[in-house]
Amino acid sequence: MSFIEVKPDSDFSIHNIPFGIISTAGKPTPRVATRIGDHAVDLSVLAEAGLFSDVQGLDKHLNVFSECFLNEFMSLSKPVWTATRKHIQKLLSASEATLRDNEALRQKAILPISSVKTHLPVNIGDYTDFYASKEHATNVGIMFRGKENALMPNWTHLPVGYHGRASSVVVSGTELKRPQGQRVIVKGEDPQYGPSLRMDCELEMAFFVGTGNKLGDPIIVQNAKDHMFGAVLLNDWSARDIQAWEYVPLGPFLGKNFGTTVSAWVVTMDALEPFLVQGPAQDPKPLPYLTEKGPSAYDINLEIKLKPSEGGKYSVISRSNLKYMYWSFAQQMAHHTVNGCNMRTGDLCGSGTISGPTEDSFGSMLELSWSGAKDIQLDGGITRKFLQDNDEMILAGWCEKDGIRVGFGECHGKILPANQ
Amino acid sequence: MSFIEVKPDSDFSIHNIPFGIISTAGKPTPRVATRIGDHAVDLSVLAEAGLFSDVQGLDKHLNVFSECFLNEFMSLSKPVWTATRKHIQKLLSASEATLRDNEALRQKAILPISSVKTHLPVNIGDYTDFYASKEHATNVGIMFRGKENALMPNWTHLPVGYHGRASSVVVSGTELKRPQGQRVIVKGEDPQYGPSLRMDCELEMAFFVGTGNKLGDPIIVQNAKDHMFGAVLLNDWSARDIQAWEYVPLGPFLGKNFGTTVSAWVVTMDALEPFLVQGPAQDPKPLPYLTEKGPSAYDINLEIKLKPSEGGKYSVISRSNLKYMYWSFAQQMAHHTVNGCNMRTGDLCGSGTISGPTEDSFGSMLELSWSGAKDIQLDGGITRKFLQDNDEMILAGWCEKDGIRVGFGECHGKILPANQ
Repeated sequence: MSFIEVKPDSDFSIHNIPFGIISTAGKPTPRVATRIGDHAVDLSVLAEAGLFSDVQGLDKHLNVFSECFLNEFMSLSKPVWTATRKHIQKLLSASEATLRDNEALRQKAILPISSVKTHLPVNIGDYTDFYASKEHATNVGIMFRGKENALMPNWTHLPVGYHGRASSVVVSGTELKRPQGQRVIVKGEDPQYGPSLRMDCELEMAFFVGTGNKLGDPIIVQNAKDHMFGAVLLNDWSARDIQAWEYVPLGPFLGKNFGTTVSAWVVTMDALEPFLVQGPAQDPKPLPYLTEKGPSAYDINLEIKLKPSEGGKYSVISRSNLKYMYWSFAQQMAHHTVNGCNMRTGDLCGSGTISGPTEDSFGSMLELSWSGAKDIQLDGGITRKFLQDNDEMILAGWCEKDGIRVGFGECHGKILPANQ
Repeated sequence: MSFIEVKPDSDFSIHNIPFGIISTAGKPTPRVATRIGDHAVDLSVLAEAGLFSDVQGLDKHLNVFSECFLNEFMSLSKPVWTATRKHIQKLLSASEATLRDNEALRQKAILPISSVKTHLPVNIGDYTDFYASKEHATNVGIMFRGKENALMPNWTHLPVGYHGRASSVVVSGTELKRPQGQRVIVKGEDPQYGPSLRMDCELEMAFFVGTGNKLGDPIIVQNAKDHMFGAVLLNDWSARDIQAWEYVPLGPFLGKNFGTTVSAWVVTMDALEPFLVQGPAQDPKPLPYLTEKGPSAYDINLEIKLKPSEGGKYSVISRSNLKYMYWSFAQQMAHHTVNGCNMRTGDLCGSGTISGPTEDSFGSMLELSWSGAKDIQLDGGITRKFLQDNDEMILAGWCEKDGIRVGFGECHGKILPANQ
């Protein structure tokens, strides 16, 4: 229990303690904060007040909370992340007087969430996107290549992934213009230039690399979790018509790199640990470098909510769960580095679209509308196949167990009309 | 003519004036330099001595030459790059006394190239690799997918590109371990884990983005050249067996991201301007957003040289030219941003393998050995199909016209044995 009010349905209980970057009207310089209930807690203020001076490993780096990205803090490595989070939990607990009874410090450090602006939390070096949901890969494969070639022979042997664009990763709340480019309107005819007519979302989660590896030295699967700092929701916006035309043979490019949205609060792997579950059975048995001991999937409820430009409220159009993901985060990291590829603090690895086994759990409008063959029903009789201009979308995600709730807040985006 | 000796076959005449990052035993902090003949010129020393104080646009940012990457200088935009290069040409010319007659400053600033260490010149945000040589795309297409599907329908409509890995881009001279991973030894059987058995190079050039664009606002093709800072040689090392197994449907990943080598000296687009030529005819006519006025290909001679682990000297195994590239750098940049994707100072865009029309001008060992079907002949009767451990490779590139030579130096790499 915290001395700060936390509603039962809040994603940000004292069991969470995520990290993010905030600024305020009165102090526009971005700095590090955590969130609890409907408040942000400015960690740079607590650090200046000496409240972290006895956290081992952090004590000599108190300036990390005055940085405009989390990277410096992340680079301190897992024992420091763990100790810091525990210390913050203690500072915010109802039984601890230090902050609770320091009215002046509380005024300065504890800020109503409505008064803060959140920023991209991490300076992302490289962004990789995996393709780790078997249901999604199968669904999209059927639509792009037909049933015969849906799942490629490699898919069950390795977590297929590709490099994405780091420059266009934006924080929740950023509006994105509808992309333009080449797409084929009539099959077999030449492509035309114009705005995407098949604007889509992808429901993903992603982890941030906390500490990396030297070029040439892989991270082994058993150690992978210790290299991960935390996770976020990720919307891998996709222009399906641009993607379908361009993606052979080297993969998606302009169909994706106009924007990727992540949620603002990075939930630590420590906070997610209680929600570990066994993932899907893997057949064939993975090669030894991908073989894990113990559970490594996470039971995280996921939702896609859509508010149409016509107005009204958000409708839930999909309910999925991260536990459906075939290849775990740890397997992704081990695979990514098995050839010696180096990861750096701040690298982002997306899961790929998380589709569940049923039609109402698909993680993209491409799947939900089955490539536009059927309508997605919204409240008030409104329908969609793909996104229209000024539609807004929220991804949500949360864990619940034994009365404890840990969640990710929202990953929000709005599609603006294309440039004229 | 410079007062510093420049041999006739040097890549670094006074017409070049590239930019790079150096350090020395006596001063290990990396900083900005140019190169002329067999000397590096420490620009941070010249800046401190006041020699750039009347270069407009640079005068208020003289600290850019004390940075450990070129990015700060690059962000000052093209008029400043142009003025700075011209000013350096004047300072180094035989007729200019300022530096020529200042013995103490010369001692401090002009360093024998053998005494300096070169570093990765640019802090790379995103690295994109194109696939812009028709000959290469056709050759590889035949080998990976058969003659029928060699060149995909999109290829003649747009410059196909994909995102690469920025973290593993290294400077010339860096040794790389042979990557390990999954590859299929016998067609149709399950993959095995082990070192790549088909280690290859790719002869490429690349440009660095000098100034970028805001997310959502494309760079139009007519303006693209003004956004490019300069060019380098690039070796896109490729593990063909890993790549062949993993690359469907989302493109190359671990077959590439274990290392990419760039040459140390960034040759400015200004220095390359005299070598502009008309590129290959484009049929079909590109869409308006890809339509250029005037020549935009560069006549740059390229070579691949291989020194086998058995010893001996380097053998030239391919002679190609950048002018064979079907899609120009400007078209690549316009296409990359047409959907609103943002480029940032320091982004790297590779051309893709530059293969010429003849068998001795192919830009990869995959093509030169036709997927291992024939031997590549080296001096002394030694042969190769792919790279062996401890083989060394140099890419070279230079322009020549009217007695003027501007070149890139070398892009060197060595393949070390895989981890045990």
